[in-house]
This record gives sequence, C-alpha cells and structure tokens, in this order.
Amino acid sequence: MQTPKKIAITGSGLVGSLLAIYLKKRGHQVDVYDRRQDIRTMNFSGRSINLAMSKRGWKALEIIGMDKPIREIATPMDKRAIHVPGKPAYFQYYGKEGEAIYSISRGILNKKMIDLAETEGVNFIFNSKVWDVSLPEAIIYTGDNEKEEWTPHPYDLVFGADGAFSRIRHKMQRRSLFNYSQHFLDTGYKELSIPANKDGSHKLNKNSLHIWPRGNFMLIALPNLDGSFTCTLFMPYEGVNSFKNLDSEPKVEKFFSKHFEDVKDDIPYLIRDFFKNPTSSLVTIKCFPWIYEDKVALIGDAAHAIVPFYGQGMNAGFEDITILNDLMEQHADDWQTIFSEYQQARKPNADAIAELSYRNFMEMSSKTADERFLLRKKIEKHFSEKYPGKWIPLYSRVTFSENSYAEALQVGDFQKKIMDEVMQIDNIEETWNSEKVENLILTKLSNEQD
Amino acid sequence: MQTPKKIAITGSGLVGSLLAIYLKKRGHQVDVYDRRQDIRTMNFSGRSINLAMSKRGWKALEIIGMDKPIREIATPMDKRAIHVPGKPAYFQYYGKEGEAIYSISRGILNKKMIDLAETEGVNFIFNSKVWDVSLPEAIIYTGDNEKEEWTPHPYDLVFGADGAFSRIRHKMQRRSLFNYSQHFLDTGYKELSIPANKDGSHKLNKNSLHIWPRGNFMLIALPNLDGSFTCTLFMPYEGVNSFKNLDSEPKVEKFFSKHFEDVKDDIPYLIRDFFKNPTSSLVTIKCFPWIYEDKVALIGDAAHAIVPFYGQGMNAGFEDITILNDLMEQHADDWQTIFSEYQQARKPNADAIAELSYRNFMEMSSKTADERFLLRKKIEKHFSEKYPGKWIPLYSRVTFSENSYAEALQVGDFQKKIMDEVMQIDNIEETWNSEKVENLILTKLSNEQD
Repeated sequence: MQTPKKIAITGSGLVGSLLAIYLKKRGHQVDVYDRRQDIRTMNFSGRSINLAMSKRGWKALEIIGMDKPIREIATPMDKRAIHVPGKPAYFQYYGKEGEAIYSISRGILNKKMIDLAETEGVNFIFNSKVWDVSLPEAIIYTGDNEKEEWTPHPYDLVFGADGAFSRIRHKMQRRSLFNYSQHFLDTGYKELSIPANKDGSHKLNKNSLHIWPRGNFMLIALPNLDGSFTCTLFMPYEGVNSFKNLDSEPKVEKFFSKHFEDVKDDIPYLIRDFFKNPTSSLVTIKCFPWIYEDKVALIGDAAHAIVPFYGQGMNAGFEDITILNDLMEQHADDWQTIFSEYQQARKPNADAIAELSYRNFMEMSSKTADERFLLRKKIEKHFSEKYPGKWIPLYSRVTFSENSYAEALQVGDFQKKIMDEVMQIDNIEETWNSEKVENLILTKLSNEQD
Repeated sequence: MQTPKKIAITGSGLVGSLLAIYLKKRGHQVDVYDRRQDIRTMNFSGRSINLAMSKRGWKALEIIGMDKPIREIATPMDKRAIHVPGKPAYFQYYGKEGEAIYSISRGILNKKMIDLAETEGVNFIFNSKVWDVSLPEAIIYTGDNEKEEWTPHPYDLVFGADGAFSRIRHKMQRRSLFNYSQHFLDTGYKELSIPANKDGSHKLNKNSLHIWPRGNFMLIALPNLDGSFTCTLFMPYEGVNSFKNLDSEPKVEKFFSKHFEDVKDDIPYLIRDFFKNPTSSLVTIKCFPWIYEDKVALIGDAAHAIVPFYGQGMNAGFEDITILNDLMEQHADDWQTIFSEYQQARKPNADAIAELSYRNFMEMSSKTADERFLLRKKIEKHFSEKYPGKWIPLYSRVTFSENSYAEALQVGDFQKKIMDEVMQIDNIEETWNSEKVENLILTKLSNEQD
C-alpha cells in the first residue's frame, strides 16, 4: 500500500489519462491539467494518425480491467495490404493466426479514457496552461498568459505527460547535466480520409493496414469503426515529390492520379483536405534524466517522442505506466527508488524503440514494394512457424511480446545478419523453403549461441 | 558596400564583441546586449579555462588589424609538457619550429575586445536581459524580470552570440523542424591556480601547455603573463576518482598528494579554491538551422558549443566571423544569401570540430601517458618533416592551418588507419625511423590516392 499523495499530471492525452487512472486506483489524489479545452467538447480530426494498439498497450489496459470497453472501439488488423502499381494487393500477415494490431481513433480513445478516469474520481482541469514547475518543490504554475500573473499549485509529486513539446521537460532542459535532443525528419505528414460505402461497409479490406509504398513517400490507411479509413500521406517537405511542390489543386490531382491511381477515387475530399489539413512534422525526442529526485517524472512522449512507423508511440507510453505500476507495488512509499528504477528500466527501451521506429519508415515506404524483401519476410515466417522457439521475427517481438524493446533491437540485428546471408543463396527464389536454407539458418543460430 | 543596418547582437563575450567590431567597420549601427554587468567592472575568475588562440583565431583578428594588441597579452605555447608520475616531464612539440598556440586569459581578452569595440563606436548595453525575440521581425525584448513588462527593440538584423545557453536559440528551438541536441560529459572541471615565483617568474616551463594525464581525469595548466598558471582539473562527477568523492579537505589533500605529487605544493590555495570554485560542466550543443530567413543568425557557442579539449571553441567562433565577413563582401545587401551560405559553410565544420574536441579528451587525459602513443606521434612528426607535402598531422591541420575542420577530421581518420598499421610492425620501437616504415606509409598513401 502507498500513502496517499497529492499528484499533478500535466497533459490529458492517452498516457496522462491512463496514468491518472492507475494512480487514482492506488488511492492518490490526482489532478490532471491540460492547456487545451476538454477534447470531449471538440471536433478532433485533421491532424491525427490512427493508433495501432498492440500487446504492450493492451496489457496496461488489462491490468486495470479497461481493455474490454476499448476493444469495442478497436478494429483488428492482422496484415499489411501492400498496394504496388499494376499489381493486386499483397497481404503480408503480421504474426501468427489470431495475432493482430488494433486500429483505434486517437480522438475516440482519448475521450473514452477521460470519461473512465473521471468515473474513477480523477479531477481534470482543462484550459489551464502550465507555464513553469519548481522541480525541488513539485509546484506547478498556471496562468492565462506566460507574461501575466501565475498561480502556484503545490503537489507532492508531478508527472509530465505533456507530450513531445513538454513544458515540464522544457524546465528540466535548462538544468546542467540534462542531455536532450530533438530531431525532425525531412518527411512530414498529412491526414486524408476514405469515407465508408453508402451501406456503411469499408471500401477496402477492413482488417488490414493498407500501404501504398512509393520509395521516399507513401500513403497508409487504417480502418475506423464507421466504415471509413483514416489515411496518412507521408512525404518529404522538399524535393521532386514533396509537400512544397504540391502547391496547387491541379498538381495534387495529377500527383494522386500518377502515384495512387487505384485509391484516388476513394478519397473524395482529397483537394479540400489536402489544403485544409496541416502538414505535420515528425520528431524523435530523447532526454535523460527523466526524473527530478522523488518529485517530478516525465512519462510517454514527454520523455521519449518517437516517429510513428512502428505504431509503438502509445504502446511504449502505456508500458511506462505498467513498469511504474510494478515499481509502486514493490517500493510503496519509496518514491526515490520508484522513480530511479523507472528511468533506469525504461530509458534503454525508449532508445531502442526510437531506433526501430526510425528504421521502419524505410521498410514501410520502400522495402514493402520490393519482391526480395517480401521473400525475406516469407522465409523468416516459414522458419519461425517451424521453429517457434528459435526464431521470433522482429516485428512480433516488438508488437506481440512483452519482452523488452532493447532485446528486440539486439536480436533483430542478429537475425538480420543471418537473413542477409540467406538472401545471398543462388536461386533463393526457388529454394526458399528447402532444407538447405533451413539448415543454414539453424547452423548460424547455433554458432552464435556458442 | 553594404547599406547600413541597425543590428543587435546578444552577448558581449568574445564572439559577440569581435562580430560587433566587424559589423561596425562595415558601417552598420551595432548594439550589443548583455544580461550581465560590464565584465570590465568585475573580477572575472574562478570558472574559466584559459584560451589557446591558434591560426583561425589570429586570422580573424588580423583582418581588422587587432592582432597586435592581443599578441601583447598572449603567451606562446609550442609544446605539451606531459607529467607522468616518477618520470621527468616529456615535451611534445605541437608543430614545426615557430608554430605555437597562445595562452590568453579569457577575462583580460574579453575586456580588451569590449574596449576596442567601444573605440570603434559599438554601443554596449549591459545588465539588460533579453527574454525573447520575434524571429520574423527581428525584435528583441528586454526586461528586468522574465515575468514583468518587456520592452521591444526593433532591429533590421539580430545575431545571437549569447553562448551555449543562448536565449535566441532557445526561441528557435520551439519551432518545428529545428534540430537540436545538448549532450553533457560525465566529466566536470574546476579552476585552480599556480601563482608566480616571488620574482614574477613562472614556476613551470612558461611556453608549455602542462598536462598531468591520469586516465579518466587530468590536470592541465596554462601560463599567464604575470607568472602564474591557470590550472583546470577535469574529473568525473561520480566514481572512484570524482568530484563527488572529494568531499572533505583531507580527501582533497590526499588525492593531490597521491596523483599530483610533483605539482601539489605549487598550488598553495588548493583547498580554498577547490571548495570555493564551482564545478563546471562540459556540454556539446548542436543545432540546425542557425538562421531565420534574413533576420536572425546564431554564431559561436550559441550555434555550436563544444568541449574544450582541442582549444578550438573561440577559434571556431572567430572563424564563423571570418566566413561571414567574406560572404558580406561577396553578397552586399543580399542578407538571405549571406545567412544561408554562412550556415551551409559552417555547419559541417562545427560538427567536425565538435567530434574532434570530444575525442581529444581521451587523447589528453589518457593517451599522452602512453609510450606507444608518444611513439606514434613521433613517427608522424618524423614523416611529416621529411614529406611535408604528403602528411600534415591532424593537430596541425586543426590548429595551424585554415583548411576546414571537416577536411581535418576526414584526413585525420585516414591517417589514423595508416598509423594503426604502422604500429603493428614488430620492433617498431627500434625501426620507427627506418626506410621500411617510411615506405609503408608512402605505399599506403599512394594506394588511397589512386
């Protein structure tokens, strides 16, 4: 049991809301501050990538019995549907039968989680801008304007769950010995939409994450409950195929006709949405430490914002909570130890998923259009099904397991070396499921294990 | 000729003051803001590493005829004096005869440069805190307190020369697509002092940069005009030999007796200074872009703070000014081009000297105590003297040339590969100046040049 504390959380996003529920269930008094209005009172669209909930995310929900209501708003996707020009869609299954990632609208999920948190007794304070925090005292300061009078709010503990541009981290960044980096991709993204058929059914295969890989740009589509798909166009800001160059309606029309001919007509508000919706940026943020003594801790994107190409941003944030919960269970009122072990446990994994996510852009946008890459995946899958104890593919380690991201990165690099050799075999296209290939992999695996 | 502009520079440090002189000489109106009081009215000591002015620094001074007064306050150091326990000091010359780096007190230099800038007609505004900048309008905002009324000061151009913790960069950092990192070493530093002999002479060889390399920590000493040396102890914050562990007078006494026996008695105020002077941190800061359109530019440490182990921080900042000056000469009133070419030209070189400086800690603190390393340097020097057109050692490229840092890094890595092989030769200790070794190097060099 923990002694009840007075706790502030900055940010009512997914991680902030879920953390609030966890802390409330442990008996703490929890106030959640958000600078924006209550998301439940606004139209949340136009700048979102649908979420893909996987194992780690579900686990955090299951522990507090919240998975059931969320499953009702989730659509399973058990495969990639890869759309290459002039070919039928290719379905690449993500895992074993029954394994899937789940498409969920960020807005709907967030609204639901705030509802659930309120039911638990969490206090939400919207339209309240946190400008500053006193780290040694766990006092947060709010005010209408950065330059006007601030109101101090003293707490026992403060959690910064205020996302990639965290104000809490911003304060920590001005301290000595705080390591920090923000790195933006040259690629931005824009939300588009495929509405449902008139009968409410989906225009494309419903249980797939659709990808139109086109080299250094791509379109993806994730299903919604209402029959629509939320699409995201990822594209460089500058260059031949770029947001900068698509500066007129005819250019956008022509670009989509040329590159996305098979899906263009399914996006009826293409032109309107293209020019109305913002071009959003993609950033990787790393920092350390994540904590200030036993007073303040960063969590979720505030501690480790990553690019979305592994669908793990929310899952990693939720796993932060699971780990923190285990540590609260173990160390009760010793918050210094809880915080310290929390950052030690999570930092290497946050770095690993950042790296994996960064790499996965190339996989999605470029390699999925490559026959050799698909063959490589097929060989891995074949071997893994035959020897499930010897080979869990990287994607499954990240998505369908609870083993650490750091381990996934390490084993994935090892597997990659083996597969690089396998792909060197002459006629691998014909011999891919032969005993020869199988034995090569087995030998390589046992050599390395010696 | 440039049309006179109204220009603000934030920061009256070395780069800010020198840039002000350059701009003033081009006919601009120049105001320099500093949040601190006029350094000329204060005692500047206790937290400084002496500067080592080298080629790039001198060049920036020569162009505006300022080198002469500065040479008067500089002490040439043509060698490292390496102090290993139980051995006489080993003198390792930095370059060819006549080549030296110059020890200068940061405080004295800065005061002199502000004097010179004022003589030119630069307007200094001290005790004036710049809290914010409007990037598109080049307006800076000052005020006594961050939370009180700010006064706007509109300019045509703003230069952020406000150092590693630049407020101008801080504003740019909150923009999308601004890449940024700050990385602190686990090693901090503390200033100590060796006073002059009673007759005003130096207690140690005056024309040397003294190093006491001790693995993961080291002491260095740079000469001052008055016969004293400014010493800097570099040491990890935590661990066996660390600032954290040296928390009592007896421990400091014992530590210095054990590790710096030969010099301990020359530091009479060791205990006083050790506990009075702050433990300062060492940070590498990288960012991009450095400019905002044709309005705002970062320069010096504000754009690229580096660790001090190559003695190039000020030199790199001064070289920024030289390059900027060339571009002002070429492009007159086209500030967009001036700024854009400035950052394109300087960024790769800033990254290169950051890398070289980071690596040089290991060289200074650890390798200089290693006989094999000293032999390697001797071989390089020998070969370089015989074939000056074929081999310029890395240190000389960085310190005694005007070729780019990026080139120095690249060629240095290539030379390192060759020297790694040379050091593998049996009995290299005996054969180091043989024809065989010489021919090996010549062959390697010509192979790579094909």
